[in-house]
Amino acid sequence: MQKGVKFCIIFGMNYPKPLLQLISALRFLPGVGGRTAERYAFNLLGWDEAQLTELARLITTCKKGLPLCETCGCLSDQEGCLICKDAGRDQTKLCVLSSLKDVYAIEQTGQFQGVYHVLKGLLSPLAGRTLQDVGVDLLIKRVEENGIKEIIIALDSTVEGDVTSLHIKRELAGKDVTISRLAFGLPMGSSLEYVDGGTLALALSGRRSF
Amino acid sequence: MQKGVKFCIIFGMNYPKPLLQLISALRFLPGVGGRTAERYAFNLLGWDEAQLTELARLITTCKKGLPLCETCGCLSDQEGCLICKDAGRDQTKLCVLSSLKDVYAIEQTGQFQGVYHVLKGLLSPLAGRTLQDVGVDLLIKRVEENGIKEIIIALDSTVEGDVTSLHIKRELAGKDVTISRLAFGLPMGSSLEYVDGGTLALALSGRRSF
Repeated sequence: MQKGVKFCIIFGMNYPKPLLQLISALRFLPGVGGRTAERYAFNLLGWDEAQLTELARLITTCKKGLPLCETCGCLSDQEGCLICKDAGRDQTKLCVLSSLKDVYAIEQTGQFQGVYHVLKGLLSPLAGRTLQDVGVDLLIKRVEENGIKEIIIALDSTVEGDVTSLHIKRELAGKDVTISRLAFGLPMGSSLEYVDGGTLALALSGRRSF
Repeated sequence: MQKGVKFCIIFGMNYPKPLLQLISALRFLPGVGGRTAERYAFNLLGWDEAQLTELARLITTCKKGLPLCETCGCLSDQEGCLICKDAGRDQTKLCVLSSLKDVYAIEQTGQFQGVYHVLKGLLSPLAGRTLQDVGVDLLIKRVEENGIKEIIIALDSTVEGDVTSLHIKRELAGKDVTISRLAFGLPMGSSLEYVDGGTLALALSGRRSF
């Protein structure tokens, strides 16, 4: 997302200025183009004053009310990190993720009772993100200092996810830690006919006795 | 859109409360379901403080800064209605629309130099919207008092749009006004193979000498 306080106006349409500004601001939401932003803006013009005030309040206060935990990078509230403070979790098992949202995807499976470590993105030479930028050094430090026994790497199955996973594996080489990565294979409910060759090759090489 | 200041929380997901509230509020945008609202909310957590404040300011001030013109229902600013105050427009030609956004769709064609009348929606017995609710009575009054010579009905080609158009025609029966409705037919660039039967029938009955 582009940085800068003022959202730049990019439309040729003869909308009044406040509306143009709102449309331009809404375009910064992910996957929202000009047409969708226009639709949202006109819809917002039909909202109650009270609803608009409430939405604006939530937008400004949500981030402030949920600072990131300094240890794991998850959302925390006044009482501390929502994950770290949970005494029922196994503090020796660590799941490494690249985005805050993925924490909830893993949580929803109900299959993981350890703690998380959210990186600040994935390694990317093109975008200039190094090991320090994404916080791999903090991960290594945490593993060394907290007696982590098992690491589950749950990064995207993209080139950037692969590179980041390999770097984490290399940095932890020689340490007494079990490292695994999420399995690659057929998505549930998929038909072989529609699965791409790369996925099929991974599913084949990762086949399990049945 | 449901009325009420507090957006109700409808998720089973274990998100912190401020995030849940933001997600629920964003779901009121048109076409935004749970997954999209989650995506927007997590994206907003990554915005700068200044950007969030600016977006919130635009959301609360946009509607206040653009009250609807009492005559035509278009957006107006401090200096009055953006359309009515335009001296270059033919005040005897009136284009009837059902939504504010449609004004800009017609404007963008560059083919219409008259003024607009935006109804407050379309007639709908199911939703309980009567002639008074959508403001057809104000339209008739405006036609009678302002010497309107031509009316172009630019309502949706839906059952509700048809009913509203017929009612406007009936109310203006006997008055010295030319009434027309937008043409129905093939959309530009369409292939006959993919055009539905109803559209094709309308295109056939509305054929023009060539």
